[in-house]
Amino acid sequence: MFRITLFLPVLLLTVTFTKSEDECNLSQELIDEIRSYQTVVDKIIDATTNGQFKGATFKELATFVDKFGARLSGTRSLEDSIDYLLDLMKSYGVQNVHGEDVQVPLWVRGNESAKMLLPRETNLAVLALGGSVGTPDEGIEADVVVVRSLEDLHQNYSNAVAGKIVVFNYEYIRYGVSVSYRRQGPIEAAKHGAVAALIRSVTDFSMNLVHTGQTSYEEGVTKIPAVAITVEDANMFQRYQERGQTVRVKLNIQTESFPEVKSRNTVGEVVGSENPEKVVLVSGHLDSWDVGVGAMDDGGGAFISWYSLVVLKSLGIVPKRTVRAVLWTAEENGMAGVIGYDAAHKDELKDFIFVMESDEGTFTPLGLEFIAGKKRDLHSHRDIEDDDSISNWLLAPINATQAVRSSGGVGSDITIWKDVIPTGSLLNDNGKYFWYHHTKADTMDVLDPDTLDKATALWASVAYVVADLKDDFPRDFSDKGFYTIPNVFYVVLLSLVGLLLH
Amino acid sequence: MFRITLFLPVLLLTVTFTKSEDECNLSQELIDEIRSYQTVVDKIIDATTNGQFKGATFKELATFVDKFGARLSGTRSLEDSIDYLLDLMKSYGVQNVHGEDVQVPLWVRGNESAKMLLPRETNLAVLALGGSVGTPDEGIEADVVVVRSLEDLHQNYSNAVAGKIVVFNYEYIRYGVSVSYRRQGPIEAAKHGAVAALIRSVTDFSMNLVHTGQTSYEEGVTKIPAVAITVEDANMFQRYQERGQTVRVKLNIQTESFPEVKSRNTVGEVVGSENPEKVVLVSGHLDSWDVGVGAMDDGGGAFISWYSLVVLKSLGIVPKRTVRAVLWTAEENGMAGVIGYDAAHKDELKDFIFVMESDEGTFTPLGLEFIAGKKRDLHSHRDIEDDDSISNWLLAPINATQAVRSSGGVGSDITIWKDVIPTGSLLNDNGKYFWYHHTKADTMDVLDPDTLDKATALWASVAYVVADLKDDFPRDFSDKGFYTIPNVFYVVLLSLVGLLLH
Repeated sequence: MFRITLFLPVLLLTVTFTKSEDECNLSQELIDEIRSYQTVVDKIIDATTNGQFKGATFKELATFVDKFGARLSGTRSLEDSIDYLLDLMKSYGVQNVHGEDVQVPLWVRGNESAKMLLPRETNLAVLALGGSVGTPDEGIEADVVVVRSLEDLHQNYSNAVAGKIVVFNYEYIRYGVSVSYRRQGPIEAAKHGAVAALIRSVTDFSMNLVHTGQTSYEEGVTKIPAVAITVEDANMFQRYQERGQTVRVKLNIQTESFPEVKSRNTVGEVVGSENPEKVVLVSGHLDSWDVGVGAMDDGGGAFISWYSLVVLKSLGIVPKRTVRAVLWTAEENGMAGVIGYDAAHKDELKDFIFVMESDEGTFTPLGLEFIAGKKRDLHSHRDIEDDDSISNWLLAPINATQAVRSSGGVGSDITIWKDVIPTGSLLNDNGKYFWYHHTKADTMDVLDPDTLDKATALWASVAYVVADLKDDFPRDFSDKGFYTIPNVFYVVLLSLVGLLLH
Repeated sequence: MFRITLFLPVLLLTVTFTKSEDECNLSQELIDEIRSYQTVVDKIIDATTNGQFKGATFKELATFVDKFGARLSGTRSLEDSIDYLLDLMKSYGVQNVHGEDVQVPLWVRGNESAKMLLPRETNLAVLALGGSVGTPDEGIEADVVVVRSLEDLHQNYSNAVAGKIVVFNYEYIRYGVSVSYRRQGPIEAAKHGAVAALIRSVTDFSMNLVHTGQTSYEEGVTKIPAVAITVEDANMFQRYQERGQTVRVKLNIQTESFPEVKSRNTVGEVVGSENPEKVVLVSGHLDSWDVGVGAMDDGGGAFISWYSLVVLKSLGIVPKRTVRAVLWTAEENGMAGVIGYDAAHKDELKDFIFVMESDEGTFTPLGLEFIAGKKRDLHSHRDIEDDDSISNWLLAPINATQAVRSSGGVGSDITIWKDVIPTGSLLNDNGKYFWYHHTKADTMDVLDPDTLDKATALWASVAYVVADLKDDFPRDFSDKGFYTIPNVFYVVLLSLVGLLLH
């Protein structure tokens, strides 16, 4: 016992010293300020999960997707849905509601079909990948060669695929890795003379669903039709090939690419009372692929964003800075929406305090994922948790108390700013996200009313508190990136506010 | 302490007395006999899960479904697959391989399509239910009325559905209950003048898949098209109706029913060495619906059955009685296969010692489910487990040691015999069975090679031991049903052998 009590103070001293060195101590003033928001956050949570807004986000989203269905970039359906949402936001008293023009791609899926002719005749489920060229009107008929990877293609089949249809039956690792087959597969197959590429759908679970998504072409390489097939069919082709059976497929894919057309980012605000020029931005994208109705990707993210403004406005909660919702257009096929926005608002980015996007599902919210600049040697989340001086987490009532520093991106659109603006995304229990992603099964049935309420409550609370704090999130650029100097203050603040979080 | 030790002997005495009264004690002779099978069961398990048959059931099934695809009753595909399997069984040395003719239904799906016209134009995923009549060539166009139940239809919409399309968007309880909407829904809708019935797919989980299955008509009630829709679309129709929006659908369903045609039950045996006329029967059905490839329903059940004969034959394991595999035809649309078999073998049923079917999935095997006659006041499995004298369970090596007395049926086909022959089915971890059931997603990807090996090992072991025991399973008919007399002996035996459990 004696030796233990002797050692304890030494240990504590070490911890304190380390923290002090990295400026990890929160000032009592800041702690008190953050804690002072509990009342208003409780009000937001209660009104959204139990009170006047209970079920509202789901109901609005269901009405919206039931009315417009899929909303592919460049289509009438997307533009009509934007008009509808502009009117809807205005009707709720959201301020400065307007569309901001951007030029977006228009690629249209026509008739498409695929039939296996050998060794057995059967129809195959297919979806042309976004941006894919079509086949000739009469289709393409060719034997199939299955490869397991790009290396497998280059090393073992480079002389075997000319005039053939290449099937990429890769091992799924995770979306960010495996999506490379969708983007690069058709290019690499074409380099060896293939006439089409069939890409195993990018998902960790399949019930015979085909997943579309954007593909790519490369200057100087023949553009060949790039088509998603099911995991099941990819495995079936593999088995045929391993048995030495010839697989022959007839593919007819009609697509058309048009010149860019006008679309709009959809914008609304709760204008700040003291520094209206300073902005906390919440966002999701309003466009979707042309299959399913884009309820999950990204109806949920878009709707918790604009509905957060409705919640704040209706409750009379006006922060010092402006909370702005931007519903991006044309995320799915190249992010023309955010690229146009970035160009148009270049001079104002210095006043963007915090930018959030939810585009990885609105399943049970767990907290916030964030990128806090380039410096990586920050205190871990665990260190912050273990600080007993911080115990009242603002979002504990909805159990969304996790803060995770992202190792990658935070929402496709806002990744454009990850090195220059603090960015965050909704951390949620999205393990099944890729089951539904870019498929016919992306419908309202993926979402849950109570869960969406919690996501809206989190989104509105975080946006409000960050927009209302006495000080801006500090930003300091150096040749090493941003946030090299007061990054700990920033992270701790975010951990308290955003996650509020355990 | 004193009082506790005083009470214990009294308690034990009560237990012993109760067991004795119900003849629950196993004779040492029987226990020794059962234990003597461990060596041969170990041999079966080892050869199937690690040795010469490792992966074989999956490989054979994959080759089969890849070759023939779907196998609907009455089709060329099913008959070709039967020919193939007869040859295959012969090539493995299975004995008495033959087909037994039965007359089966022939119903054919033609073109089918459905489009929602109002409030938004979009294509709907549909599958005509088996046996459904078609629409006129030009289709049917009508408004939709959504009901939540048969009661809802009769009580609230009886005057509202004439000339309309009725959508049954019932609450899913479990398959055995909810399937009634598929069978009865179209009849009840027609009684009130509906022109078609759209039935929410019978499943506990949906990824926008349509589930087909057999429907019914009633003499004297107009036959209207009966069509499965997705859970997602049923919920969407519900939302439209709750908002007061008119839903209008154009339905074009082409189907054709033909006179019965000849098909075959597929039979093979390992002939018993002492009482070849006595039979332990293992089975599954070879036909499937016309969507997917029937790998799960019921390729798995059929293939563990015939492949069990290959395992026994190849290992030179010949039981005293015959082990017979019967792969039923035409289970899906009325069970014509087993009905014909029952009629043709009426006089031999007295020699059917035990009849098994696997038709509820071949996921991880857990043991055996069984029906032991009509008497219900048997000792529970737990009582048997707790008997310390029984500790060596034969199938412990594959952890398939559960015996469950079924409260309902045990495989669709063999339910025909549940009151006259001891019947059993594969108890397996089939919680996701109805996710895939009767859909395009019923493919090889549902199954797993190692899991199928274990199921084959269990199936072969149970069949062999029951077919080889000194005594037949006792059967004694009285006016109260069968097994009213020596039922405990039977149950204990089954619990030891079948599940061999714990």
